[in-house]
Amino acid sequence: MSRRQWQELDARLRGAPRPAGPVPIEAARAGFAVFMGRFPVPGGVRRSSRKLAGRPAVLVERSETGGAGTILYFHGGSFSLGSPETAMAVTANLVARTGIRALSLDYRLAPEHPFPAAIEDGLDAYRELLDDGLDPVSVAFAGDSAGGGLSVTVALAARDAGLPMPAAIVAFSPGLDATRTGASMRGKEGADPFFTLAGLERSGDVYLNGQDPRHPLASPAVGADLAGLPPILLQVGTNELLLDDSVRLSERARDAGVDVILDVTADVPHVFQAWAGELEEADWALDRAALFLTQHVRGR
Amino acid sequence: MSRRQWQELDARLRGAPRPAGPVPIEAARAGFAVFMGRFPVPGGVRRSSRKLAGRPAVLVERSETGGAGTILYFHGGSFSLGSPETAMAVTANLVARTGIRALSLDYRLAPEHPFPAAIEDGLDAYRELLDDGLDPVSVAFAGDSAGGGLSVTVALAARDAGLPMPAAIVAFSPGLDATRTGASMRGKEGADPFFTLAGLERSGDVYLNGQDPRHPLASPAVGADLAGLPPILLQVGTNELLLDDSVRLSERARDAGVDVILDVTADVPHVFQAWAGELEEADWALDRAALFLTQHVRGR
Repeated sequence: MSRRQWQELDARLRGAPRPAGPVPIEAARAGFAVFMGRFPVPGGVRRSSRKLAGRPAVLVERSETGGAGTILYFHGGSFSLGSPETAMAVTANLVARTGIRALSLDYRLAPEHPFPAAIEDGLDAYRELLDDGLDPVSVAFAGDSAGGGLSVTVALAARDAGLPMPAAIVAFSPGLDATRTGASMRGKEGADPFFTLAGLERSGDVYLNGQDPRHPLASPAVGADLAGLPPILLQVGTNELLLDDSVRLSERARDAGVDVILDVTADVPHVFQAWAGELEEADWALDRAALFLTQHVRGR
Repeated sequence: MSRRQWQELDARLRGAPRPAGPVPIEAARAGFAVFMGRFPVPGGVRRSSRKLAGRPAVLVERSETGGAGTILYFHGGSFSLGSPETAMAVTANLVARTGIRALSLDYRLAPEHPFPAAIEDGLDAYRELLDDGLDPVSVAFAGDSAGGGLSVTVALAARDAGLPMPAAIVAFSPGLDATRTGASMRGKEGADPFFTLAGLERSGDVYLNGQDPRHPLASPAVGADLAGLPPILLQVGTNELLLDDSVRLSERARDAGVDVILDVTADVPHVFQAWAGELEEADWALDRAALFLTQHVRGR
């Protein structure tokens, strides 16, 4: 798929009908699973069920000659939808490209479990990996959308709990600001084929359940001290409402003396890496993420 | 060399004596050549003299099994110092990693040839490559420091002259703002081991020779419309006075719908890629630049 072909698809997505009213959460989850199921999982990886700190998880490994190291992966879905399976295309593409196994965590979702349940689950999962003897420099955090946010906030929670930092963080179109104050929140309305500001505010309300959106773990792009975080790779598209979440996190990271790569692709939508195999830019972005992971994850 | 060892060296560099008064340009050029000569050129490449649009140039090729494509390289040296030889470590490292040959241009220098002579030479060189039948998608521009600035401004000049764009731009610690208005110009004084604001202003005055620093080709980070530029990779260190040159160029690129990667490494100094083989971060950064080039340069 060329970028021109993509732009035609993008325009169709933008014009797609949206539900006129509230959707029951189970229907929304089912719809999200169907939508994400369109993205093919690459060959050459095997999946198996695991438990991680009491939560379900999916272990994704390269079928042949994997390397050492572990990616702790956090799926997307606005903190209320999704599972390791809905993010499997991107997760498996990282595993296939790096040889590093992934453990994708089925963290608790809102509204049943609002903020900070997902972060607590992520922190517990990381702590269990360390308790099991994994070297922190062999672990990377990665995630997409809400899960990209978790890849940052779980690292912050781990730092604040006195745990050693993982080797790296990779976040695809992360949500990093529950205050929704980035300029792109209004500037990209209409350009973003997936999100509206009203929709993000609704899902943010579900996640926060009345808690302060300015909490540093709800809005690390506006409120968190990032000192001590490991190298961070942020990938995002120019049409995204969430663009400035990444822009501002990268500013804070630079100010805190953290290595950070802000990797912006024009015109592509939210988590465009899911279109690997169809959209050239998706494969390129995943290859850059894979190089970044292999540069930082040790014990391989 | 670990980052800790680097930081000790960095502190020593920061404390190095500086000339108390003006230095004759020929002495400054000789000193710069000695300083840059400390950086080892990797094996596996061969160099030969060429002419490019009437200027000397150095062709750098991998000794075995090079790929197609051409990097038009612009050396650093504040627009008044340096030559293809002074940037050879970085140039040859790109060639060795990618297999893409480089043509490094010995463009005219200030004060003998002030702004925009260097840009004119770069534009003439690119035009000659196209006239010789090179496909623009097989050509990338790259450069360090002042030459990183040229990798952007020569592309702007080419666009404005109606030439097709090259495939990509790679700029290491580029100088992109002769107005020196970035916050890092003052905020990083003392942290930057190489530059002082007064020193940058002196070399800028030599380059501009009384011309307006706000000219878009003198200060693309503050004054240029970047629409139509190819994908850009900017690599810079957090301690650099020039940090915000890259930060602001990346903002303008995003706003113009240009793919742009702002790749920031903490604590390292100006053009740290020259320390390849000694500083791990230098090799990693060059590997990322090499991947970016191979993703975009075609005809290989």
